[in-house]
Amino acid sequence: MMKKGMIKVSVLYPNGDDKSFDMDYYCQKHVPLVAKLLGDAVKGATVEKGLGGATPDTPAPYAAMGNIYFKSIKEYEKAFGPNTEEIMGDIPNFTDIIPVIQVSKVEM
Amino acid sequence: MMKKGMIKVSVLYPNGDDKSFDMDYYCQKHVPLVAKLLGDAVKGATVEKGLGGATPDTPAPYAAMGNIYFKSIKEYEKAFGPNTEEIMGDIPNFTDIIPVIQVSKVEM
Repeated sequence: MMKKGMIKVSVLYPNGDDKSFDMDYYCQKHVPLVAKLLGDAVKGATVEKGLGGATPDTPAPYAAMGNIYFKSIKEYEKAFGPNTEEIMGDIPNFTDIIPVIQVSKVEM
Repeated sequence: MMKKGMIKVSVLYPNGDDKSFDMDYYCQKHVPLVAKLLGDAVKGATVEKGLGGATPDTPAPYAAMGNIYFKSIKEYEKAFGPNTEEIMGDIPNFTDIIPVIQVSKVEM
């Protein structure tokens, strides 16, 4: 797993009955695009697909979650800043969901 | 990172002005308790503390996120089922937040 103190930027895509999310595009095109744009600042990336909630019969709160790890907030901001527009501009190519962003510190 | 196809169970603690979360207790007592109870079914665990939202001046959607990895849904349910009460019963010891649960499949 990632080292304590690293920064994890999570992009969470809230589920919805009428919403779509193209996981193939996300994994094969979007994440590689982000990785290419952000370069060495990216220390790792993970993607998960929502299966369910607290009980198997409830929907997952999020259709998908993407996470990118950075060494520091400074490195994240420096890498992301000039590429924000290009990254955000790719989102409509795989989903109509407006994502929720969370910046976290890895505790363990 | 975790292998594609694994199950990730995320416990997300929504932020709130009047809410509290004891990260020390969570990392030092709660996660070890869960790991002990669930035993070999646990393939990994991570914890993150929320720092911010999409921009640095916005609050993090979640005060904390805990994630446990399993080989399969079956292994997760088998391990968690008989321990649900003891695990849930420990939550008031570190927070007054009612967590949101998401079960996901690792895609990358």
